[in-house]
Amino acid sequence: MPLIQVYMLKGRTSEQKRRLIEEMTNVMVDVVGSDAERVGVVVHEVDAENWGRGGVPLSGEPRAAGGPVSP
Amino acid sequence: MPLIQVYMLKGRTSEQKRRLIEEMTNVMVDVVGSDAERVGVVVHEVDAENWGRGGVPLSGEPRAAGGPVSP
Amino acid sequence: MPLIQVYMLKGRTSEQKRRLIEEMTNVMVDVVGSDAERVGVVVHEVDAENWGRGGVPLSGEPRAAGGPVSP
Amino acid sequence: MPLIQVYMLKGRTSEQKRRLIEEMTNVMVDVVGSDAERVGVVVHEVDAENWGRGGVPLSGEPRAAGGPVSP
Amino acid sequence: MPLIQVYMLKGRTSEQKRRLIEEMTNVMVDVVGSDAERVGVVVHEVDAENWGRGGVPLSGEPRAAGGPVSP
Amino acid sequence: MPLIQVYMLKGRTSEQKRRLIEEMTNVMVDVVGSDAERVGVVVHEVDAENWGRGGVPLSGEPRAAGGPVSP
Repeated sequence: MPLIQVYMLKGRTSEQKRRLIEEMTNVMVDVVGSDAERVGVVVHEVDAENWGRGGVPLSGEPRAAGGPVSP
Repeated sequence: MPLIQVYMLKGRTSEQKRRLIEEMTNVMVDVVGSDAERVGVVVHEVDAENWGRGGVPLSGEPRAAGGPVSP
Repeated sequence: MPLIQVYMLKGRTSEQKRRLIEEMTNVMVDVVGSDAERVGVVVHEVDAENWGRGGVPLSGEPRAAGGPVSP
Repeated sequence: MPLIQVYMLKGRTSEQKRRLIEEMTNVMVDVVGSDAERVGVVVHEVDAENWGRGGVPLSGEPRAAGGPVSP
Repeated sequence: MPLIQVYMLKGRTSEQKRRLIEEMTNVMVDVVGSDAERVGVVVHEVDAENWGRGGVPLSGEPRAAGGPVSP
Repeated sequence: MPLIQVYMLKGRTSEQKRRLIEEMTNVMVDVVGSDAERVGVVVHEVDAENWGRGGVPLSGEPRAAGGPVSP
């Protein structure tokens, strides 16, 4: 009964999320021998202004000092 | 100060969520002797297309091979 | 296929954890009509020095200013 | 590559979230010597009716017994 | 900068965990076009007595009523 | 009642964790006006072999292709 929680930016299609669920489940089956029916995958979509890296939101302007931060 | 995070499908009523909070808090009080005022409960509601089981989203069509997947 | 993640201090017995799992599952069945076989519960036990409240670890000495912090 | 997940009530401004990201990143840099570019911060905003404390949602009426619960 | 948190039972080898990290990262690259260097994977290993399904710990005896629960 | 979950590599001292708890709580007080007594901080320490970045565990050998991965 493994559980996979995926946190990523908003904006992917339903088809991309369907493939994520399918392929991550396959990884659990292949690598640790899980029963596919017991593998749960939850995709959390995060707004760019709620996700920070390098001290700034991914939605934000690049910092003057340190240069641009590529998402 | 225990914390309970509940992940479930969207679509429950406010009254159901109110009861979840109340009854899960009671479980912590009864079983581990927590002070109710210190018990936090956070309910995360997940879209069916973001929740996978058996390799397919709960929103999705049942897989041809393996038969239907009941939500 | 709801999932419940419980974060609490270390130190509870196996029997207390068994009861937590049983009773939290029952809450999901009673309140939202989940199939018990699909309810997952994961208990995370946290060291007191890794859990902070009021700005201090639960393992720690009460702060001089603000008075004692009861766990 | 530390990760910080913040759960808080909805309703803060983008500027407050930007400052949270900046200042939490700074804490990781100052206290554990993280490289700021590797620090991730994810802010999860929770509806008041989905957050319980003391057995009641933060959106809810104070309980008759036990008196008011201040958010 | 997607993040994947995997919760599974304890007992897998380092090599299995290495493969999980590699293959899950590849899924993110293939499906959503992530830069591999920005994909984080955290594997949480859970004791069987801390993981419940069907209301009983995975470490536990099958319930008398309802029959055995296969892990 | 905000909650902060910090995931980082094992190996920090108790004093560093104490400071993390104190300073992250201060950020919540300063930026969103939280009552310090309601701020919870949970620090999760992760083994290097359970944390992947760039498709390899932080414990691992640098990949031949792509060059070394600095932790």
